[in-house]
Order: sequence, then C-alpha cells, then structure tokens
Amino acid sequence: MDFTPSERAQDYTERVRAFMAAEIAPVEEGYLRELLALPEAERWQVLPVIDELKAKARAAGLWNLFLPDDKEGAGLTASEYAPIAELMGRSFIAAEIFNCNAPDSGNMEVLHHHGSAEQQERWLRPLLDGRIRSAFCMTEPDTASSDPGNLIATAVLDGDEVVLNGRKWFATGIGHPRCEVILYLGRTDPSAHRYEQHSIVAVPKNAPGVTVERMLPVMGRYDEPGGHGEVSFDDVRLPASAIVGGPGQGFAIGQGRLGPGRIHHCMRLIGVAEMALEAACRRAAERTAFRKPLANLGGNRERIANARIAIEQCRLLVLYTAWLLDTQGQLAALSYISQIKAAVPLMTQEVVDMAIQLHGGAGLSDDHPLSAAWTMARALRLADGPDEVHRGVVARMELGKYGMER
Amino acid sequence: MDFTPSERAQDYTERVRAFMAAEIAPVEEGYLRELLALPEAERWQVLPVIDELKAKARAAGLWNLFLPDDKEGAGLTASEYAPIAELMGRSFIAAEIFNCNAPDSGNMEVLHHHGSAEQQERWLRPLLDGRIRSAFCMTEPDTASSDPGNLIATAVLDGDEVVLNGRKWFATGIGHPRCEVILYLGRTDPSAHRYEQHSIVAVPKNAPGVTVERMLPVMGRYDEPGGHGEVSFDDVRLPASAIVGGPGQGFAIGQGRLGPGRIHHCMRLIGVAEMALEAACRRAAERTAFRKPLANLGGNRERIANARIAIEQCRLLVLYTAWLLDTQGQLAALSYISQIKAAVPLMTQEVVDMAIQLHGGAGLSDDHPLSAAWTMARALRLADGPDEVHRGVVARMELGKYGMER
Amino acid sequence: MDFTPSERAQDYTERVRAFMAAEIAPVEEGYLRELLALPEAERWQVLPVIDELKAKARAAGLWNLFLPDDKEGAGLTASEYAPIAELMGRSFIAAEIFNCNAPDSGNMEVLHHHGSAEQQERWLRPLLDGRIRSAFCMTEPDTASSDPGNLIATAVLDGDEVVLNGRKWFATGIGHPRCEVILYLGRTDPSAHRYEQHSIVAVPKNAPGVTVERMLPVMGRYDEPGGHGEVSFDDVRLPASAIVGGPGQGFAIGQGRLGPGRIHHCMRLIGVAEMALEAACRRAAERTAFRKPLANLGGNRERIANARIAIEQCRLLVLYTAWLLDTQGQLAALSYISQIKAAVPLMTQEVVDMAIQLHGGAGLSDDHPLSAAWTMARALRLADGPDEVHRGVVARMELGKYGMER
Amino acid sequence: MDFTPSERAQDYTERVRAFMAAEIAPVEEGYLRELLALPEAERWQVLPVIDELKAKARAAGLWNLFLPDDKEGAGLTASEYAPIAELMGRSFIAAEIFNCNAPDSGNMEVLHHHGSAEQQERWLRPLLDGRIRSAFCMTEPDTASSDPGNLIATAVLDGDEVVLNGRKWFATGIGHPRCEVILYLGRTDPSAHRYEQHSIVAVPKNAPGVTVERMLPVMGRYDEPGGHGEVSFDDVRLPASAIVGGPGQGFAIGQGRLGPGRIHHCMRLIGVAEMALEAACRRAAERTAFRKPLANLGGNRERIANARIAIEQCRLLVLYTAWLLDTQGQLAALSYISQIKAAVPLMTQEVVDMAIQLHGGAGLSDDHPLSAAWTMARALRLADGPDEVHRGVVARMELGKYGMER
Repeated sequence: MDFTPSERAQDYTERVRAFMAAEIAPVEEGYLRELLALPEAERWQVLPVIDELKAKARAAGLWNLFLPDDKEGAGLTASEYAPIAELMGRSFIAAEIFNCNAPDSGNMEVLHHHGSAEQQERWLRPLLDGRIRSAFCMTEPDTASSDPGNLIATAVLDGDEVVLNGRKWFATGIGHPRCEVILYLGRTDPSAHRYEQHSIVAVPKNAPGVTVERMLPVMGRYDEPGGHGEVSFDDVRLPASAIVGGPGQGFAIGQGRLGPGRIHHCMRLIGVAEMALEAACRRAAERTAFRKPLANLGGNRERIANARIAIEQCRLLVLYTAWLLDTQGQLAALSYISQIKAAVPLMTQEVVDMAIQLHGGAGLSDDHPLSAAWTMARALRLADGPDEVHRGVVARMELGKYGMER
Repeated sequence: MDFTPSERAQDYTERVRAFMAAEIAPVEEGYLRELLALPEAERWQVLPVIDELKAKARAAGLWNLFLPDDKEGAGLTASEYAPIAELMGRSFIAAEIFNCNAPDSGNMEVLHHHGSAEQQERWLRPLLDGRIRSAFCMTEPDTASSDPGNLIATAVLDGDEVVLNGRKWFATGIGHPRCEVILYLGRTDPSAHRYEQHSIVAVPKNAPGVTVERMLPVMGRYDEPGGHGEVSFDDVRLPASAIVGGPGQGFAIGQGRLGPGRIHHCMRLIGVAEMALEAACRRAAERTAFRKPLANLGGNRERIANARIAIEQCRLLVLYTAWLLDTQGQLAALSYISQIKAAVPLMTQEVVDMAIQLHGGAGLSDDHPLSAAWTMARALRLADGPDEVHRGVVARMELGKYGMER
Repeated sequence: MDFTPSERAQDYTERVRAFMAAEIAPVEEGYLRELLALPEAERWQVLPVIDELKAKARAAGLWNLFLPDDKEGAGLTASEYAPIAELMGRSFIAAEIFNCNAPDSGNMEVLHHHGSAEQQERWLRPLLDGRIRSAFCMTEPDTASSDPGNLIATAVLDGDEVVLNGRKWFATGIGHPRCEVILYLGRTDPSAHRYEQHSIVAVPKNAPGVTVERMLPVMGRYDEPGGHGEVSFDDVRLPASAIVGGPGQGFAIGQGRLGPGRIHHCMRLIGVAEMALEAACRRAAERTAFRKPLANLGGNRERIANARIAIEQCRLLVLYTAWLLDTQGQLAALSYISQIKAAVPLMTQEVVDMAIQLHGGAGLSDDHPLSAAWTMARALRLADGPDEVHRGVVARMELGKYGMER
Repeated sequence: MDFTPSERAQDYTERVRAFMAAEIAPVEEGYLRELLALPEAERWQVLPVIDELKAKARAAGLWNLFLPDDKEGAGLTASEYAPIAELMGRSFIAAEIFNCNAPDSGNMEVLHHHGSAEQQERWLRPLLDGRIRSAFCMTEPDTASSDPGNLIATAVLDGDEVVLNGRKWFATGIGHPRCEVILYLGRTDPSAHRYEQHSIVAVPKNAPGVTVERMLPVMGRYDEPGGHGEVSFDDVRLPASAIVGGPGQGFAIGQGRLGPGRIHHCMRLIGVAEMALEAACRRAAERTAFRKPLANLGGNRERIANARIAIEQCRLLVLYTAWLLDTQGQLAALSYISQIKAAVPLMTQEVVDMAIQLHGGAGLSDDHPLSAAWTMARALRLADGPDEVHRGVVARMELGKYGMER
C-alpha cells in the first residue's frame, strides 16, 4: 500500500497548480464580474480572456488531461488525474481552460471510444482542439430519468436514416455559442432487452427539428455562457451513421460515460470543498465578533474540524474508486462509483453551507464564490442520478453479498 | 391548556385563506413569470396586478393584520396572527398584498410605538396605507453585525441636527421604486452605556448623501422589485427631530423591533415548509420510477414523516413563543425567540431541500417555487442574527439557571 | 389558545414536585446503590423503602394519577397529567411510588375499561392498590412483532375454555416478585378480519404451563426488580372468562392501550431529557479544562442550546397530542401519537448522549443516572413499535391527504 | 498510488482470518455465555478456553502482530497491521488471543521503546509471552483528564526513590487476575516546562499503597475479566529505577503511546462496524414484516448504504493515517490521528445503533453481540480523549495553516 502519487501525476499536478496560480487566479474574479455585469441576454458569449487562457494552457501541455490517452491527453490514469481535477475544481473556469470541462470531457470519451472515423473527424477533433462545444441530452422533463426504463424520447430507424422525437432538459452547455453537437439518447427498439433498447445519436445542433426551447435557471442561476437548456427534437432526421457505436448500444455507452463522468465530478467537488474550507478558515481567523475571532466562538472550530475530516474521507474514497477503475474496471468499481456520487456532492454542499454561514450576508452574495459553489454542489446531488438512487445501488450490492436478490 | 384558536383568529384565518385561494393563487405564478421575463433592469417596478390585489385586500378588511392595534390593524395578538402569517408564507407575494411584509411591518411597528406625531404623519400614515415602502439599515459590510458593539456607522448630534456617516448592506426593500424612508441605526454616543450608544434615524431615501451603491444578489437572486442593497451615508444631515424615540434609544427600539420581526419570519417560514411538504407529497404520490410511485422508493416516506414532525414541532414552538410574548412580554420570551430563530429557518431549509430532491431537476429550476423558497429560508439563517448567535443566547439563559455568568 | 395549565393540574404538579423533592430525591441514589450492591440473584426483591414511599404517596393523595377517573385517580385529562408524568420521568422510581408505572398503568387502563367485574375484582383492585404487579405479553422473539399480522401465539377457544400456546419476550415486570397477572395477546380466529383475530387473556402468572424462561438484559442491564423476561405458554388452559373484553377484541383493546401508553412514555422521557440537560449544564458550568469551564469549550454551548430547543419542541408536541386525545379522541390523535413516539425517545437518547459526553468516564459509569437513562431511551425507540414503523404511519396519513392509498 | 496490501500483510491477514474462522468463531459465543452465566463475583477469572486459544495462536505464529518488531512480532508496519486488527475487531476476544489487546499492547510498546533492561526483563518479557497483564493509570476522577495540565496525581522523587500519590480511574484491565503491573502517570516537577513535568512509573500491582477501590461499570457492563477500575495510590514508594524512560519523560512517552493506541482502537472499530453491518444485512434480508423483507421497508436500504459508505471512508482514513505514521512519523500524522479518533468511534456507534434497530428487542439483548459492541464504541468516544478534544486538535492545525495561533 502506497499513497504516494506517481512522478508523472506529481509533475502534472504541480504544473497545473502553477498555471492556475499564475494565469487563472489573477483574472478569474474579474472575468466573472465582467460577465455578470453584462445584460442577461449578452452573457451567452465567450469573453476574449477565456480563449487567451485556453491557448496558453494548450501551449503549456496542460490539455485534455482527463483523457487516458497519451496521444491526445497525457496518458494519465484516473487516480493520477484525481488531484489535478481537484485543483481545477477550486476554480469555476479552470476545467474549461484545460479543455477538461463537463459535458465535453464525457462526450469526447464517448466519441474517442465508440465514434466512427467520420464522427471522430467531424466532432471529436474540434472538441479535442477546444474549438467547438457539445451537449448531452438524456434527462427528460416528463419522466423520472434516473430510471432509464422510463425514458420516452425515441431514435427510430427508418431505412438508412434515424428519426428523433422527444423532449430533453438540463442539457448542460447547450446555450454556449460554440455548441455544435448534441449526443442524444433515445429508444430505438422497445422490444429489445431492457439494456439494449437505446441508441446514442450525434446530432448537429443546427439540424432541422432541434429547438432550444428555453434556458433553465438552477437555483436562480443560468450559468452562462454554457447554461442548461430544454431542447425539443421534432422529427429530426439524420443518416443512420449518426448513431454512435451502433443501434441499441446507447445504454451501455451511456453507463460507460457516466462512470468516469461521476468520478470527475467528485474530484472537482473535493476542490470546491477545499476552496470553501479555506475561505471558512480565513474568515474564522480574521473576522471578529464579541471581541473574539469567529474561530473561537461557539462550535465553529468543531465545524471546521468536521469539514476537514469529511473532505479527507471523501478524497480517499474518490482516489480508491479511481484506482479500482484503473486496475479492475468499471464493474469492480460499481458500488464505489455510487458511493462517491452519494457522498461527495452532499459533503461539498454541507461544507459550503458552513462556510457561507461563517461569512454572513457576504457568503450569500456574489462577492464570494461560495454561493455559486453551493448551487453547483446541490445540482450534482441530482445530476447523473440522485443520491437516493446511488444509495440504492450500494445497498443492492451490499445485500447481494448475503443472497438477497433485489 | 387549550390549543383552540380564538374565534377572531379563526375568522381572520379563514378569510385570509379564502382570499388567497380566490385572488392570489390564480395569478401568482403568472405574475412571477411575467416579472422574471422582463430584462433585469426593468424588474424594479410594481406590476399592476400587485396594486389591484392590495386594493382588494384592503377593501376586504385584510390589511395590516400584523399590527396589534385594533384601529389600524385587527387588534390581533401575536398568537392569533400566527396562523394567518403562516398562510401568507405559502406565497411569495401574499404578505405584501396584505401589507404585512418585512421590513415594512417592523418599521411600522417602530414608528407606531416610538415615532413622533410628525414622523407618524410623514412616514407611518403612507406605510399603513401601503402607498410607500421603507428599508431598515442596520447590518454593515465591514463588521460582524450580529455584535452591535461592532457597528461602525454613526449618527452624531451637531446642534439641532444629526449627521449620519456609514455604510450599510442587506437593506431589504431599498430597491423598491416606492421606497421612501430608511430607518438607520448609528452610534451617537460611544461614551454611553453599551446599550445606550445608538440612535435610529428616519432618513428620506432621497436625502443628500444617501447612495444606493448596488443591489446585492442572494444566492444568485435579486428578489426584485424590492431587493437588498448596499447603501452609503456620507454626511447625511437631518434635523434632530428625525431621530426616532430620542438619541440613545436605538438599541432598545431595535431589539423591540426584532422580537416580533423574528416571530413573523418564523410564522411565514412554517408556511413555506408546509408548501414544500405538500409539493413533496404530491410529487411522491404522482411521479413513478422503477415501476413505483416515488413515495414507495427508499427512505422517501421516512423523510416525509420527519418533515411533518419537524413542522409540527416548529409551529408549536412558534405559537408558544407568540403566546409568551402576548401574555408575559418580550423578556419572558427572550430564550424562545432565539429558539425559534435557530430552529425554524433551518427546518424550512431542510424540508425544502428534501422537496427539491424529490422533484429532481424541476426542483432546481424556476418551474416550482421550491428553489426560491430555499433561498429565502437560507437567508433567514443569517438575517436578524445567525443561528449560532441565537443558540448562544439560548445556552446563556440555560446555563444561567445554574449560576453561570457568561 | 392558552398554554396555562388548569388549576387542578398546577396543584397536582406542585404536590408531586414537592413530594419528589422531600421524599424521593433524598433516598433514590441510596436505594439504587443498595440494590445494585446486592448479588445479582438477590436484586429481584422489593426493598422496604419502596413500600414506605408508596404508602406515603397514597396517603398524600398522589396515587393512580395516570387514570382519567376521578374515583380511583384524580380525574386528570392526559394533558393535565403530562407535566406530572414528566416530573416522574426525572426519577427511576417515582412512577412506581405513585403507582403510575408501566406496564401496570396500561394494564390497569385495559382492565378498567374492558375488564369483567370478576377481572376487576381479582386483578384491577389489587393493582390499583399497588399490592400486586402485572406484565403485558405481546412481543414475540420469532417474528417482527411490529406487524400484528405476524404474531404466532394463539389463544384458542375450546368449549368454555381458552388455550394459550406461544412464546413471548420483553415482558416488562415479569421478574417482579409481586407480579401475579399477565395480559397475553394471542390469535383466536385466523379466519376473522385482520383486526379481529386476536384476544387478550388475563393469565395468572402461576398458571400451569406458564414458564419464565429467562430474564433478558437490555443493553447489559436487567432493570431489577421488575426486569424483562422471555415467557413460554404451553397449553395454558383457562376458563374463557379470562378473556378480556371478549374474543377477537384483542387488537382493538391493545391499540387502545398503546395510545395513552405511548404518550405516557413520551411524557416521562421529556423528564429524562430535562434531567440530563440539567446534569449537562451543571457539569459544563462547574468542570474546568484548558483553564475554562467546559461550557466555554468548543461546541458545548451550541449543543446545550440544541438540547433545550429539542426538549421544548418535543414537550409541546406531546402536550398537543395529549390535548387532541382528550378533546377529539384517539383516531384524531393517531398521526400525532406516532409523531411523538418517533421523535421523543430519539431526542432523549441524543440529549442523554450529549450529557454523557460532557461527563466523560463518569457519564458512562453508574455514578450518574445518565447511562441508565440512555438505555431507557434507547429501548423505547423499539418498545411499542420501532421509530421506523411510526414514521411509516405518519407518512401514510400525510400522503393520504393527497389521495395516495398506501 | 497503490492500494494493494503487501504480500506479507496479505499472508498474515489470511492466516488470522483462517484462525479466527477455525478456532475462535466456533467457541466465542459459548465462552461469553459461560462467563456471563457465572455469578458476578466469579467472572474475574480466565476460563481455560482462553489459554488454549492463546497457545494455539502463538504456535501458529500469530502473536504480538501489533509490534513493529520482527523479533517479537512479525515486523509489520501500522498499515500492514490495519486489516489484521480490523479482523480482530470483529470478535470480543480475538485481540487477547493474539496477544494484541489493549492496554497491554500499548504498555508493551512503551516498555519496548523506553523500558530499562530491568523493566523489560521483569515486565515486558512476561507481557510478550502473554503470561501477565497490565494496566495504564492516567485518567483521574477529580479532573478533566483530557487536559494533562489538570492532572493531580504525583510521582515525586525522594532521594533514590519515587513516591506516588493520587487517584486514577478507568484503569482498563486492572481487574484481571493476572494483572501484575501498572504504568502510572504522575507529576514529578511542577516547575518544569508544561510537557516535562510528568513521569511514567512501572508499579507492581501488589505494591503497598496500591488499592483497587472498585470496579466500574461502563453503560452497565463490567467487561470481565479485565474490567475498568478506580485505583488509589497512597504513598506508594518505589525505587527511582521504576520510572520508565527517566523523570519528566511521562508526557512524551504517553503521547507516543497514544498515537498507535488510537490507531489500533480505530482499526478494531472498523471491524466492529463491519460485523454490525453484516448482521444488519442478514437481518434485513431474512426477517419479514408487512409481507416484505425488512430490507424493503422504509429507509432501511438507504441506511445500509450509508453505513457501507461511512465504513469505507473511515477505513481509508485509518489506512492513510497508518501509512503516514509509518512513512513520515507521528508528528506528520498528528491531525489525522485526531481525525480518525473523532470519526471512527462515532461512525461505529451509529452503524451499531442502526443494526440494533433492525434487530428490534433482540438487538438490545445479549443474544447478539450488538449491544456490547455499542458500549465499546461509545466508550471509545471518550477513552484516549473525547471526540471534542480531537476535533479541537484538527481545527487548530487547520486554522494554523492560515496563521491563527490558537
């Protein structure tokens, strides 16, 4: 047993840390302020600083690090990438700067592993280059989408075409001005086995029949310029070659996408929690009330200690999950992926809530990143499956050890 | 012991319930949608429906019910008003429609009890009529304002004038187009007893030297058209007659304002929690996943039960606190006011969070009132004193029973 | 609405308080010490001080106060009895001294309401006089007894006799040397409606076929001299007149017994929690570490405040439940009885746990009543139905408001 | 990063697992039953089965594995020992069978690292051989012992003798019939630096002036045959050579003893929690109520999932702490040792409580090991420093990162 990260991981971690300190930290607050100062309708644009930073990051070789491929990325394993993703999580823009942001990272993985040469050329290449953006359309407004058996949207084969009909929402990134492709999950064959009914289709965002009905606020925020949208697909007709990995492969590909996706979310959320705990400690040490630093009032020290303990526990669980995924595959990591998905967003939500409380009104405002961080953590208790569904998976596997079927 | 509400309370409760069902419920969602559909800069206005509803409510005799005065209000005690305020809490606009909204209600109480005839004529009368709005400026950005000893802003006597200097924030309602008067708390005499240093001054919002520096988002929301602002006071010079209740009375008046204010907040938050629990139950009963209604999945029933229990407990504690205030005065109710202030917003936040989780993505969006309700509850864990300060008050009184000084 | 207790309630409360201070408090610790100093096998006896105190209590008119009957008790309603029961809860022996202890109080209620003249003469009279003790045999070791449909034990009619077969456990009081009668619940007619299958039978403890197999420890304690036992009934043959209230009435009578029984438990547990909070405060104020009283270390004040708030909330919920029972009957109080049963023992367990923690090792020992109090609270999270079953009842009624069947 | 245990660790882990399955599991329940069936006064003895098992374990080379010494133990590092200690934690007697039980293990470490040749010959040798037992006397009844500055007991040098006066309690193992030596902590020089005032003295249990005043129950249990005692030291006069490691070294040695001691406790508690979770799952899968297995009722699955997640998190944190201790020393591990001490006993208490609840009354009885396991976990929230003190250490180190002094 050895908790020492590999030399390669240490090297990349330090380079990302240095880049963030030198390039991102000095401009992030100003960027966010500039964006939010724009009228709402004008926030759906890429401010120049973003492109400048992306170019620098790519030039520094800090690009596509999420991808376990040593040609396009750096060939990092999941557990090597973990501390890097955690660092990115401390910033709202870093993941994008390093071309490691959701949902593009997951979509790139799908196209990398399952895309046809044509799909890779048309969509993967520009995504890897950070030239275009993408969205993933799985969740539906009219059904509990955590149960794939519930999904209504269709992707029906018609000769050598596939026809899409359905309504999706919480399509993250769909509002981005450079979003050009949508990975869409729809039912192709209701008569097939439960897990072989669906297909994933790569849909040009400007295909006829695709309509972004509206952008959705999340706890009052639109999260521009990418945002989250409700999208209708009305008789969207594409060549069957737009199907990724073949008809009926949608569920399997989607699950394969979700595993690393969930781990990446959790890695970044550890960084969010660390950022919040640091803010809480600084505030507790510096702010005075009743003639004492806040740190010495009431239960504040115990809350800080509990936050530290909770973060350490979550980080170790994420690392262990990543290591299992690296060494034994997604099936072996199944319970653990659900464990971290149930544990980490909730932990981060609670740590951020504690930090907000220590900041008083300032913590609720946009003067600190805490309130936006809270929203991110809260949303991730639902995105990629609600906590309760993941607890159900963990329990099922636990009870299965003693012979219980379901 | 008798938990039966008085006939008068029952009568008003039923009339408010009927008015809300007939007049407010049918239009509220449309109103909020209309307001949010406006460009941000245009949301700081009163849409006509609000004035129409206010006129109807006043005509129906459902006006200023918060005020324990039978000429201007209905002469209801706090415990009689409790179920009525709870009903109002189920809506985002009802309190305003009935002219019972914070911070105006608290400001009216201050002016009713302590205002000079001139102040009552100039400010109280139009407030009671719902013609103007007001703000309360106590909290400061540069100091932990839960400790009044920390406050920096001044209200210095200079001959027959009083001169204000300071910076305040989270001044609720300051953005309202009809906000005309500010109750401002500043230090007049630093050499006086700790609790006799401050004065409250009634400041015309358009007085020279008063500047609304910016409106503050709370968890990403601006809460238009009233909002919460940061306000600077630079050598604001007013006749000394603008002081409410006399120099040095500010702390005492402020505390007297906070007691009922905190109870009213808690009453309304019970309503928020009831609204959320109802939404959670409806969703749990109607929505299906894994071939079962959500109610029958995992711990959802237990969470619903816990929410019901928590609401009942909080309601009873609020009622008991109100009854103590009515029958034995604010001093006797002191620990209880802090108890409800520590317990109720947190309970509501948790019930709303549970309801959001049951709604999935929809719960995070603005399609349901849940996400805005969450923000309201969260903010009230800080407004009027953070939870921790109130727990400190409760503990001090508890330990005092056994001879502990502080 | 009026929280003032009736004059009668106040009078009895004060008399019980005075009696406890003058008669019980001075001797309780010594009594418990004397009992525990005996060899285990000799603890199943009534020490003389108990009988002396009982005689004094009866002479003082503080006797059978639990019984809402003004001939045998004092005619107190449940809500009048609540503060009295709470006081008794602060002591381990007071309920017995006032002849208000479980399970005798519940058994007396059953016999009072449903017993035949013969049963009342033979069992109720001596119970009311405090001359004998009783047990209630419902729970079974071999089945989840919270679901009455699961119960295995039988009470079969055979001519003019009833024949009992079954194994029961956690029969509280069965080890008491004066325990003479058992109320036994068994299935009489499996073909009847689900709630009309069972009968309650009054069984002489010395009837042939009744065997106390063993006494059961609860968290390591035997709770002498009454204890909790496992009892087998092998072909116990009694005249059919031993059935209480008639064949098939067992479930209804049992439920009727459980309502007040659960409320009484909860009332006493409020007293346990108050005792623990008082101990916690005294310890926090007096004990010093790191040059400060414990009260001023870490989160101790916040924990004390949370305990105070939790106790107040539970007390009010118990009072409201009792008032509902008094004024609207058991059906109207159904959800509330389950609410308090789910809330109060857990609250008491947590308050006691907090008090133990403040006492360090001493809190775990028998030098303080805290560790025994913890066990009592913990056991009551299972006795009379586990928390989870009660939450289920609350949720069912809550969801029923919105049309959900089960 | 590599979570694979070393081959040596795997080998010992498997051998311990096999030994426990073959030798301990078949007899443990019977042993405990036999011991508890004895009259209280006769339980302070070693039943033959214990000595037989110890001889077998030693013969199998599974002896003193806790000691990181390859002559006396197996030369295992702390992180290698962790899974082995966890296995032992699943049983109440295994640690003793493998001569790895507290407090002897910690005392052996002290004597191994700091004992004189004479002390090692007289006390360490027979302890390593499992022939005698020992106790550690630090905690005092009359002071908050978590603050060493508070300790009252003295160990004063008088010529070439050391004289002990003081009263200690919760001396674990003092009741064991083979307990022959006590490590006693007393103040030698109140004028020295805060951390150089104390000495540890190896005291023959039968030295004149040493009196075991009484054995103390912990939550009603005496934990025979070792137990926990209150011990007075009245002018106990010993040669100065009885001091371990030299006068004034007591605090440093004591702290050095506590680090591994706390980790060992936490390792074993992981095993306790695993045992409880297994019991909970088996019960949930097998027991039926309301026509469903308990697993499918209410929140039981979510509770099982939460327990699994909490155990995984705690295990990883313990492993990481052990690895830090192994590779970077006790100082580097300081915050983490406090983190696990605050997190693991509480987690175990909660998992056991959950398992008890699923078992109903049986969980409270001695028919299952759950109730005794609960007491062990609860006691360890106080032993070796209460949770709150450890949280204080964690917070101090966290705030120290940002320049806060204390």
